[in-house]
Amino acid sequence: MPSVIREPFAAIQVGYLGPSGTYSEETALRLCEKTVCELKPYTTIDSVIRAVATGEITEGIVPIENSIEGSVNITLDVLAHDVELVIVSEFVLPIRHALLTKGGEKKIDCIISHPQPLAQCRNYIARHYPKARLEAVESTAKAAQLVAEGAPGLAAIGSLRAAEIHGLTMIDNDIQDCNNNRTRFILLKQKTSQAIEEQGQYKTSIVCKMNGERPGSLCELLLEFSRRDVNLSKIESRPARTSLGEYIFFFDIEGGIHEAHVRQAIQAVRERSLWLKNLGSYPCFVL
Amino acid sequence: MPSVIREPFAAIQVGYLGPSGTYSEETALRLCEKTVCELKPYTTIDSVIRAVATGEITEGIVPIENSIEGSVNITLDVLAHDVELVIVSEFVLPIRHALLTKGGEKKIDCIISHPQPLAQCRNYIARHYPKARLEAVESTAKAAQLVAEGAPGLAAIGSLRAAEIHGLTMIDNDIQDCNNNRTRFILLKQKTSQAIEEQGQYKTSIVCKMNGERPGSLCELLLEFSRRDVNLSKIESRPARTSLGEYIFFFDIEGGIHEAHVRQAIQAVRERSLWLKNLGSYPCFVL
Repeated sequence: MPSVIREPFAAIQVGYLGPSGTYSEETALRLCEKTVCELKPYTTIDSVIRAVATGEITEGIVPIENSIEGSVNITLDVLAHDVELVIVSEFVLPIRHALLTKGGEKKIDCIISHPQPLAQCRNYIARHYPKARLEAVESTAKAAQLVAEGAPGLAAIGSLRAAEIHGLTMIDNDIQDCNNNRTRFILLKQKTSQAIEEQGQYKTSIVCKMNGERPGSLCELLLEFSRRDVNLSKIESRPARTSLGEYIFFFDIEGGIHEAHVRQAIQAVRERSLWLKNLGSYPCFVL
Repeated sequence: MPSVIREPFAAIQVGYLGPSGTYSEETALRLCEKTVCELKPYTTIDSVIRAVATGEITEGIVPIENSIEGSVNITLDVLAHDVELVIVSEFVLPIRHALLTKGGEKKIDCIISHPQPLAQCRNYIARHYPKARLEAVESTAKAAQLVAEGAPGLAAIGSLRAAEIHGLTMIDNDIQDCNNNRTRFILLKQKTSQAIEEQGQYKTSIVCKMNGERPGSLCELLLEFSRRDVNLSKIESRPARTSLGEYIFFFDIEGGIHEAHVRQAIQAVRERSLWLKNLGSYPCFVL
């Protein structure tokens, strides 16, 4: 009988914003429940994306939007300007922030977290700790670590998992200003011929620079979608980096590139644009 | 002869993001060249805006947009959701970032600045100091102070004025990724009957939540502007904070509310909105 020679399994390496205890790690762990993969932490969102682009890792998970704080600008900017990657999936994670101290003390002089959780708990902090100094660090996990290693009077905003990892005590939970706090994460890969299973809910993301700054340019562009009954779930402008007042536009389109009306709308928008980048069609999962 | 009794001059108190050496202070100082005013530093953008709202200060200067980094989200969010203030002027300041160390040393382990300058010099840092740790603090002036007080190996990104104040040495100047780096600052006041001199270049800012999420809603709204030849200099979406995927829209309109076509367009947009807030008509100055 002929023997079948198999290639040894090359583990999929997935990068995320570390260290242990970040919401990005939580999302990455959930992803790995379904696939065999090796997780690799990075210190910035930027470095996760660039590591996928150079081939150092196979895939990267990065946050792209939060329901309170809005888009994660660094993710949008690097995808638009600096790399050629595609989004292969989207994951929506409910975010619950906790206030964590060493030993449960409630006298707090300084609150440490990533800038987004600090912003997302702005009203809570103003109400309960109006005099506390705020310190922004690169991740919620780093904040928990600093509190664990630091003097009394420090508190971190982070997840219960971060509390567990660093031995902190939760003194208040669900402190985010808005209880509908969710973050969209995207899984990025290098461009390949993308296999789309023609079922399920797909989204397509594009970014373009409009041709023309006259009134109505954006409107004409939007009409290319609406006249084909193509729904947009998001429109976002970012600086074009050419001059103050010049923008590029990100569109999230409901539907995949395998659907004719989506493909035609994108083609029409491309014709009205100076440049257009297709960031991929991908399925969406709520965690 | 009857004597004329005058009220003693109440000095105008202008709040800004301090401490000394920030770009906000630079803008505030330029403003005070023209008016007698007393400058008052605050530690966050949020607290400047809220101090104007409570009447603690007469006016506040805050950044609202940078040509590379985009909108300053905290400014937009507080104006939309938390206070009732108007914009009375806009100032555009060219931003030039310098890399500053104590005594001019060039071995740098850690670069400290406000998150926006760190982002604006992302490519420079990746090219020249790929291994440096980045630390985000609340202002460029604070970063300069930390470097002045800290161990060797620290560098700050800030202005030449910050270097001067804290006795640092500039080791590289104009390190921003894009040489068209400008920041728009706005001067905020409490709502009063606003006197508009009917001359010069005015802008009007509004924020609204559209009535209807169907395709074409935004387009119909944009048509209210374009069919009246009202030009938009900016469109920006921010989370509505109600649910992921719901947004409010900020529009910067060319022209003042004293112009009939602007007034009519805003009225028409108001009728298509769940709510609309007029943030004021104001002149623009390039510093």
